[in-house]
Amino acid sequence: MIPTHRKVTKQIRFVDEKGNALGNKTIHLKQTAHSFLFGCGAFEFIPYILKGDEEHKQITESWLDIFNYGTLPFYWGNYEPVEGQPNKDVLMKTAEYLKSRDVRVKGHPLCWHTVCADWLMKYDNETILRKQLERIDREVTGFKGVIDMWDVINEVVIMPIFDKYDNAVTRICKEKGRVGLIKEVFDKAHECNPEATLLLNDFNTSINYEILIDGCLNAGVPISAIGIQSHQHQGYWGREKLEEVLERFSSFGLPIHFTENTLISGEIMPAHIVDLNDWQVDEWPTTPEGEERQAREAEEMYRILFDHPLVEAITTWDYKDGAWLNAPSGFIRKDNSPKPSYEMLKKLIKEEWMTDIEVTTDAEGRAVVEGVKGDYSLNADNLSATANLTDDEEMTIVMSNI
Amino acid sequence: MIPTHRKVTKQIRFVDEKGNALGNKTIHLKQTAHSFLFGCGAFEFIPYILKGDEEHKQITESWLDIFNYGTLPFYWGNYEPVEGQPNKDVLMKTAEYLKSRDVRVKGHPLCWHTVCADWLMKYDNETILRKQLERIDREVTGFKGVIDMWDVINEVVIMPIFDKYDNAVTRICKEKGRVGLIKEVFDKAHECNPEATLLLNDFNTSINYEILIDGCLNAGVPISAIGIQSHQHQGYWGREKLEEVLERFSSFGLPIHFTENTLISGEIMPAHIVDLNDWQVDEWPTTPEGEERQAREAEEMYRILFDHPLVEAITTWDYKDGAWLNAPSGFIRKDNSPKPSYEMLKKLIKEEWMTDIEVTTDAEGRAVVEGVKGDYSLNADNLSATANLTDDEEMTIVMSNI
Repeated sequence: MIPTHRKVTKQIRFVDEKGNALGNKTIHLKQTAHSFLFGCGAFEFIPYILKGDEEHKQITESWLDIFNYGTLPFYWGNYEPVEGQPNKDVLMKTAEYLKSRDVRVKGHPLCWHTVCADWLMKYDNETILRKQLERIDREVTGFKGVIDMWDVINEVVIMPIFDKYDNAVTRICKEKGRVGLIKEVFDKAHECNPEATLLLNDFNTSINYEILIDGCLNAGVPISAIGIQSHQHQGYWGREKLEEVLERFSSFGLPIHFTENTLISGEIMPAHIVDLNDWQVDEWPTTPEGEERQAREAEEMYRILFDHPLVEAITTWDYKDGAWLNAPSGFIRKDNSPKPSYEMLKKLIKEEWMTDIEVTTDAEGRAVVEGVKGDYSLNADNLSATANLTDDEEMTIVMSNI
Repeated sequence: MIPTHRKVTKQIRFVDEKGNALGNKTIHLKQTAHSFLFGCGAFEFIPYILKGDEEHKQITESWLDIFNYGTLPFYWGNYEPVEGQPNKDVLMKTAEYLKSRDVRVKGHPLCWHTVCADWLMKYDNETILRKQLERIDREVTGFKGVIDMWDVINEVVIMPIFDKYDNAVTRICKEKGRVGLIKEVFDKAHECNPEATLLLNDFNTSINYEILIDGCLNAGVPISAIGIQSHQHQGYWGREKLEEVLERFSSFGLPIHFTENTLISGEIMPAHIVDLNDWQVDEWPTTPEGEERQAREAEEMYRILFDHPLVEAITTWDYKDGAWLNAPSGFIRKDNSPKPSYEMLKKLIKEEWMTDIEVTTDAEGRAVVEGVKGDYSLNADNLSATANLTDDEEMTIVMSNI
């Protein structure tokens, strides 16, 4: 059962190029893309763009077989390891390539205390904040039209009290306060690209994050969507927690993005680890039982999220095993072979949740079409068209000779 | 050692009524009142006003021997048990009496989910909010000039998730969100009395409350001071926690009021109790050892708080044992005899922290006066004056013949 809010039910009038009604015709509508954002970390596209080798070609093509939405890394410390020398070219080429393959791209993140640029620490706080805002201007303006979606600021609940090491962003967050800094960085991003989708993103799903969002919205911060991380290295949240989190964060009425989802296909990380980064292992193998479990849990999770009217995006963090924390967290193994979770998700996205129907028009060329929101190709005899179907409004589609 | 921020050091020129300098004179300055708000629950003044009996006379007089600041109850459910019939008269008389005794009065609270008026629940949320704002208007406007300090809203961190019983305020907080409701009630209170001191008050001293305040301030909520409850029925916080709380809540730069302080002079409540109201006992005796401990802990606490530049007020919640939770939480016992904590605090407030000095003027009538901020009576031979000394500016004091 596909949830109603994921579908259109609309009357369409089909005409030929001269405007004549295509009466009593059978028309084949095949969905080619989803409006819903099925995402994944797209980091693997960078080595492909850099090297163009066969291995990365295969990885990225299997990625593209499922996903329409990818996250690219803009960690300041890696993006601009030396002040004034940002790695813009390779990121731009990668983003443009993804766009050419009909993938929507999100940049992650514009402001974060982790993987922060160390060279910032030689400046006073006023200068750090200025450089932070200039950095946002440079990326958001510079990538406009190619990247129009950003994780503007990451993990603010912990940001001013993060004490693992000194860093420039924690310093300014301490001084300006959480909401004050969020407002600065969002206002700047919004000013640079008023059409962009701007996310606040956090792994903290407690009442802290709720109150933070509440404060930001009342302070007029232009948040487009709430980003929720769900790295489940320590075991699947389960239906109950997932529904509880959805219920709490729905109260704002904003779109919800699951921005960083992880489910493990091996042994799970012990519960006593508080910061996932503290779990450093040489080997973390994927196992057959783990892979079955991962596919089962991922299916339940994707179904629950797809079922929720406010969820607009789900991004699985690692496409391939052995990325962050060396975890068996991917849809494909280290040898690039697909796991059961890959096959499961491909079936959901490309079959169960994708529309492929025929309708027959009446004498005036009208038919009611019911299908999942997205892009369609249409065919009837020697006529064809493409259409984006996302609402229930009546429309006319002009079909052309092939 | 009295902290510098509690004192004035100012040059004063003393003159007689004709403007002649009082040169080479010894002037006696005796402090009569503190600028700092040494407060206590003033609930016992209500039966005194109602009955005027000897017992309550004694209780209130010993109260007045120490405190210059009192909290009066405005719990909606008690204040207006039947819609349209508020208990205004007795509260007004009590507040006016306190004012006549030079006590500053705070009303507590204007909005809270506990002791809420049950009759509100028959209305829809829009009406509840309207009645809440009308109630604020009625009290803040009606008591203006007598009560100019309010706990505007109480315990908002828990307010929308409070699930012990249905109540009207939790309903509207769920709908409007925490910051949204806070903004409504503060804006109304501020509109009705722009000069009033308006407090946000909570027992939650975690990061939740910090983020809530941060959001409110960024949303333009006119908070005058941060209210922190410190009911320590389960044992004294200790210096470390107290200093840690002070440090975290100082970051906003706003005045801090310890609004509801409790230290027990008997057995402490078991740590496993989460909601203090769940601890219902028939007897909770005060003990000699408990009273010594209470005095010791209260002294440490008052010293730490008086020492902190942003703290402007400390209110002990129960003046007399056996009030809230039947606890031995007062400065006086059930038989009205003073405990060691009473004697300790009286000594601190009325002796150690109170100025009583002589200065000698130079030939032009000038002397530098150093003293604790507050009201003074001045005497020299047959001349006298009163003065309010609260800053380091130079001033002239005219002394009159007695």
